[in-house]
Amino acid sequence: MPPMKIKKHNFYAGPSILPQPVYDQAKAAIDDFAGTGVSLLSISHRSKEFTEVMEEARLLVRELLGLDEDFEVLFLQGGASMQFFLIPLNLLRTRAAYLDTGRWAARAIEEASYVGEVSVAASSKDGGYRYIPEDYEIPSDADYFHITTNNTIYGTQMHRIPDSPVPLVADMSSDIFSRVMDFNRFGLIYAGAQKNMGPAGTVMVAVRKSLLGKTGRRLAPMTDYAVHIAKKSMFNTPPVFAVYASMLTLRWVKEQGGVAAMEERNRRKSALLYEELDRNPLFRAFVEPPYRSMMNVTFDLTEPALRERFDRMWQEADIVGLKGHRSVGGYRASLYNALPLESVQVLVDVMRELERTA
Amino acid sequence: MPPMKIKKHNFYAGPSILPQPVYDQAKAAIDDFAGTGVSLLSISHRSKEFTEVMEEARLLVRELLGLDEDFEVLFLQGGASMQFFLIPLNLLRTRAAYLDTGRWAARAIEEASYVGEVSVAASSKDGGYRYIPEDYEIPSDADYFHITTNNTIYGTQMHRIPDSPVPLVADMSSDIFSRVMDFNRFGLIYAGAQKNMGPAGTVMVAVRKSLLGKTGRRLAPMTDYAVHIAKKSMFNTPPVFAVYASMLTLRWVKEQGGVAAMEERNRRKSALLYEELDRNPLFRAFVEPPYRSMMNVTFDLTEPALRERFDRMWQEADIVGLKGHRSVGGYRASLYNALPLESVQVLVDVMRELERTA
Repeated sequence: MPPMKIKKHNFYAGPSILPQPVYDQAKAAIDDFAGTGVSLLSISHRSKEFTEVMEEARLLVRELLGLDEDFEVLFLQGGASMQFFLIPLNLLRTRAAYLDTGRWAARAIEEASYVGEVSVAASSKDGGYRYIPEDYEIPSDADYFHITTNNTIYGTQMHRIPDSPVPLVADMSSDIFSRVMDFNRFGLIYAGAQKNMGPAGTVMVAVRKSLLGKTGRRLAPMTDYAVHIAKKSMFNTPPVFAVYASMLTLRWVKEQGGVAAMEERNRRKSALLYEELDRNPLFRAFVEPPYRSMMNVTFDLTEPALRERFDRMWQEADIVGLKGHRSVGGYRASLYNALPLESVQVLVDVMRELERTA
Repeated sequence: MPPMKIKKHNFYAGPSILPQPVYDQAKAAIDDFAGTGVSLLSISHRSKEFTEVMEEARLLVRELLGLDEDFEVLFLQGGASMQFFLIPLNLLRTRAAYLDTGRWAARAIEEASYVGEVSVAASSKDGGYRYIPEDYEIPSDADYFHITTNNTIYGTQMHRIPDSPVPLVADMSSDIFSRVMDFNRFGLIYAGAQKNMGPAGTVMVAVRKSLLGKTGRRLAPMTDYAVHIAKKSMFNTPPVFAVYASMLTLRWVKEQGGVAAMEERNRRKSALLYEELDRNPLFRAFVEPPYRSMMNVTFDLTEPALRERFDRMWQEADIVGLKGHRSVGGYRASLYNALPLESVQVLVDVMRELERTA
């Protein structure tokens, strides 16, 4: 008898829901990885079988994003947060420009400030980060311009990628593989795995080779992207399990029809929820339409007295992860690639039921 | 019907064999983590259930090593290799001293040289790293003295920890939790998980609070141990799966009787294999008795013509991971905590069978 699947509608902001085949295949690989008779947790990272996994993961990123030949793809450790520090080490010669659209953008700015001069082109901090600044100038003498394409905490997303006179660097941790873009407009793209790519424990960095080696800075090998590229992400022992599960997730994205199919799913899911938030008088969305994220939908009740009742209702509907970030309050429904439309429908049904019975 | 367990005798040097309950419990948690109804791969790291896992992992390290109150225990990413860089950032004010006992010690020295002045107290490089230097002076003005307690590639181990006039920093990646020591003699102990602690993807750092904050160096937050301590290893998203599997492994060590019980097991296993290597005229150990590792046993055939036959024989006996490191050649049998005596006996039986039929 297979173990009973306890069905939860998982709206966590990350780590977050993954496709069911990823859970199933990861479990099978803990018993026997790729027919080796050895557990995935105990296989040498130098084995032919794991080397192929790393290679496939890198190729799938390249293929799904349509990256040109100048790009190299890395799977590293330390999360997007460590890249906040490594990116300026590798790319900042005199000055870098950043767009401050939220807590994580601000953290990227903070880490970069320990490396060199940082200028903030624009910030929406005064507005509680509930919008994306649109009128600003990107300094043409900056070494790069850093953006955060989706702001997990606030539920905002950049729907227009700015024309930049300098290389664009983008933290796409919470919306990578979720929508079609011309990814070749970027100089560096990075993303922690734990939203749309896999479990926590690895970070993907896609960087143009032509941008590296220009700062004049002597880099300790572990901080040098060129070293990790030369060693094919195996300069030190990679996070084997997280890379394998990420590769499985990327295979699933491809099988579903790639990034375009993900965008179609995500548009339907987010439209369903935002329409309900705009229609149902008991709810209000935190973010105005032009800046709304397809990935993280932030909202609250219009009548705080209903909180206890609403909380009980969605919990009884087997929904988890709906609590808003502590700095924003209210609710946040994260609608990452692997979340089915059915889960959003369950949430919307609860909201309608609350309205009907309030 | 449960999946058939394919039994391999796993002598990999790392990632390496883990206790069977760790595989079983990790698989179960991918279905349902701690009764939440949510997969371990999809649970918020801020959930009560995972916060407790992180706390238990830290407490188990403290308990198993008998660390005093001055120590703080961290679970980070980036492997021991990233600590090669972070340790001097956090501890090196004017100069640090290192003992060069192998490739990984040399890598630690290299990364530290990007941070400050490094002096090498002694090196066994000229001797192919087949011994541990014993006559050397530790400079009393160094900020710390760095050692590698076990050298995975060469199969050497420090059986005497030097008296040091300055704080001892030890990379114990390949022998942590394998033998009893007075761990309170150290100022900082670190270990990549993927040998005796868990799967690849996390690194444990135990550091004395009293040593931090003395360099005068402004540290970027992600590189600052004090920040990670203050945030209880949750400054950024931790590698949830690797930490959970490590916690399970530490629980198993405790259940088996702790580090003393591990040492007893490891003494029996390594004695069995070294005795055979010293007795069987077809084999020779690479390392002389005073420096031999209980964890990694390096050896070769005395008659190269027998290689093909020996390789076929151990593979037919379901042994994996016996190939020596490319820089040393020959064979390496890694006998980490989770490897049963039975597996060593199978290898010894193959060696005897080779002798009998050669």
